[in-house]
Amino acid sequence: MRDSKTTSTSAARVGVRYCLPTPSTALALRPTVIASISPSTTWWRSTKISTTVLIKRPSCPSPKKAVAMTNPALLSRSQLHDNRFFELRDDTLGLADGKEYHYYSLNSKFDVVVVIPLLDDGRLVLEHIYRHPYGQRMWEFPAGGIEPGEDPLAAGARELEEETGYTASKLRCLQSFEVMPGLLSMRMHLVLAQGLRADGTTALEDMELLEVQSLSQEQAWALTIQPPVSSFLTMGLLALDRHLRGPAAASGA
Amino acid sequence: MRDSKTTSTSAARVGVRYCLPTPSTALALRPTVIASISPSTTWWRSTKISTTVLIKRPSCPSPKKAVAMTNPALLSRSQLHDNRFFELRDDTLGLADGKEYHYYSLNSKFDVVVVIPLLDDGRLVLEHIYRHPYGQRMWEFPAGGIEPGEDPLAAGARELEEETGYTASKLRCLQSFEVMPGLLSMRMHLVLAQGLRADGTTALEDMELLEVQSLSQEQAWALTIQPPVSSFLTMGLLALDRHLRGPAAASGA
Repeated sequence: MRDSKTTSTSAARVGVRYCLPTPSTALALRPTVIASISPSTTWWRSTKISTTVLIKRPSCPSPKKAVAMTNPALLSRSQLHDNRFFELRDDTLGLADGKEYHYYSLNSKFDVVVVIPLLDDGRLVLEHIYRHPYGQRMWEFPAGGIEPGEDPLAAGARELEEETGYTASKLRCLQSFEVMPGLLSMRMHLVLAQGLRADGTTALEDMELLEVQSLSQEQAWALTIQPPVSSFLTMGLLALDRHLRGPAAASGA
Repeated sequence: MRDSKTTSTSAARVGVRYCLPTPSTALALRPTVIASISPSTTWWRSTKISTTVLIKRPSCPSPKKAVAMTNPALLSRSQLHDNRFFELRDDTLGLADGKEYHYYSLNSKFDVVVVIPLLDDGRLVLEHIYRHPYGQRMWEFPAGGIEPGEDPLAAGARELEEETGYTASKLRCLQSFEVMPGLLSMRMHLVLAQGLRADGTTALEDMELLEVQSLSQEQAWALTIQPPVSSFLTMGLLALDRHLRGPAAASGA
């Protein structure tokens, strides 16, 4: 995600979508995503990169409404910190028994996409990327923030090209979910990228210290055994595994 | 996780394990986990709950050393906020081209466990729990913080009983990974719980506003389609799916 794109519009988008009782405003702020509800298959051409991407709409599911919760009550809210990525809030909640509870949470200014780039020969395109909270490099799938109004599949195509130089002719959303629902308001989309060609142009940001490598699926799974291992790698491999074998009902114990 | 247990020892444990160049100190602070390397099968009895749990050691893999990274350089560190759950840091990093970069990250004071409770008839025990960052209730697997020095499987058994009243005779670690490696230092363990009996005692904390229900795996998967959906549900189902069908190599594109 570009710094210049994380504007106050982005913050408002996330805040409205999840927290404020004005779902109609949230819809108005996300015209691209809302427009993607149509179930027809269309061609979409990115204006930022040279890739032509086949997107089967609807792409990745997005929250469409906020359900008001009456319990617990929000008594007050303090913004403890704010940067271009997230806002740290201290909410004082009133519990049913009269107690007050300080709930600390991050209001993220962007959702994220993780791309699973599957080459025609079955190998995967992975990154070895520096992760500062651990002071180590980890193997991951390409990932990044979704810009305001950007479709998750388009964001996946963009991040894939910017970080690896690969373009994709087929993109498909495998899973979407709220990343850490007790701590953080952020939705993550796992996107399968196929029809890959190494004909794109990389554009790494300052902190994207990474190397790209192609590994077999077996080699990638082997990387998930030894810590530290990124959830981006593990969740992507799990979703790919289910996708390739089909979501047939598994047996019981 | 109990508030009283998130002491400075816990903070030191997490910090040392991932960030400081003293791996031997990290080992000394985690005697329980280090001791679990022995590959023998042992019986372990929790001192906090009434469950007897068969733990096949080693249980969940844990990071054992910190690898020093020389790039980028940590120029300075500010603690912007601190609570009983996490610390917010602003690290000034020196990049190779001479630029300075402000890296905001959370240093979590605990790792987490997500329990996948699989009943003998193939159904799953789920929770419908209030998640304040979204102002909504979500379907999830039981989950919670791992106390200082606590084995992830023991933490899973404890959280399962405290939140649902079920005890388990078999616990097994399916996947372990760093949750949000670019934002947060926190390891998550996905633990499969079998041999379930509804003979335990629940002990809910203030903000654990939840209801427990048993659903088929198909019903649980259906809950992952409509947002918002918790990663705790989605990741648990993906890991269970792979486990039940076996990790046989999947075919390519």
